[in-house]
Amino acid sequence: MFSRRVNIPESLSAVCDQLSKLPGIGYKTAYRLTFFIISRPPEESLALARSIEELIGKVKYCSVCFNLTESDPCPICSDKSRDRGVICVVENPNDLFAIEETGEYHGLYHILGGAIAPLDGIEPDQLHITELVERLKDDEVREVILATNPNTEGDVTAAYLVKIIKPLGIKISKIARGLPSGSDLEFADKSTLKRALKGRTDE
Amino acid sequence: MFSRRVNIPESLSAVCDQLSKLPGIGYKTAYRLTFFIISRPPEESLALARSIEELIGKVKYCSVCFNLTESDPCPICSDKSRDRGVICVVENPNDLFAIEETGEYHGLYHILGGAIAPLDGIEPDQLHITELVERLKDDEVREVILATNPNTEGDVTAAYLVKIIKPLGIKISKIARGLPSGSDLEFADKSTLKRALKGRTDE
Repeated sequence: MFSRRVNIPESLSAVCDQLSKLPGIGYKTAYRLTFFIISRPPEESLALARSIEELIGKVKYCSVCFNLTESDPCPICSDKSRDRGVICVVENPNDLFAIEETGEYHGLYHILGGAIAPLDGIEPDQLHITELVERLKDDEVREVILATNPNTEGDVTAAYLVKIIKPLGIKISKIARGLPSGSDLEFADKSTLKRALKGRTDE
Repeated sequence: MFSRRVNIPESLSAVCDQLSKLPGIGYKTAYRLTFFIISRPPEESLALARSIEELIGKVKYCSVCFNLTESDPCPICSDKSRDRGVICVVENPNDLFAIEETGEYHGLYHILGGAIAPLDGIEPDQLHITELVERLKDDEVREVILATNPNTEGDVTAAYLVKIIKPLGIKISKIARGLPSGSDLEFADKSTLKRALKGRTDE
């Protein structure tokens, strides 16, 4: 909660309040941003406000893959040129956008809406796993690529999905773990190096 | 300009664009904030948008002191209990709010709207100096406190104001320069220490 400054106009501290609710923005930054917002030409600040309203009004989740989209099904699900035999499972829409940017993947996606994290109260039934299993009943699907985050929650989620999908007789793969491109071997952490060795490929 | 990600909904990249225009927010942060904005309950994000619209619609500059205010004249200028014989001159509205917070000052204010900075193209006639001189013609005013920022631009502005106000025969004072409370003398910079010695007070 923003500590209201003496004699500051109410609508000004309201914006401070709202901005300080954003991640990584404390009340000092919120205060600085508010003064920037009020000091620049009004149409620029109104454009910010309106872009947020439009975002909230227009963007929803795709009913097939749970991607963020303005049309349902999303452009990827409705793209006939994409390989409908492969589904890449990710935690969140931004993971999808990151993969899309590589230009290397031409299949479909399925967004779980997070990862299994019992400590944070996120159980499997809160993720879009039932919907994934439903999609896999389509004979067209040949392969599921698990692309959850390379951390504990992501690994637990991937292991859970393997257990669920295996009986369906569909090929399951996981994106590779190893040294990130452009990094130094000597500075890699033990766990990453272990994975890189284990996952070595023939030349 | 935000580099548009592949297949990202247009309204989403529009918010990224707008957020990345704010000071200190690069496109990666803007991207992260946008995902936060879309992922939380819609009413919370709409509250942010509406608070900005309300700010732009309601807040204007006081016609007397140029403070940010929802009513004109501002609450400080219209407060009959304040000492109308003292005017504290500051660069920006946030300086006013900082002084108000001390609870130590009960006079009026005058906001210049910046400081003289020829290199940035800010000349005296772009600041509210004429309006200040006009206010000083009121016989009620006994003292002008110069509270410009303790840097080159602020000092130049203060010197300029002294030159202009002196002939009017009104007492001029400057807020003290010295060691900030809670600091260490040994780590103070030379210029600050010099000022602190020069401005020493009798006990």
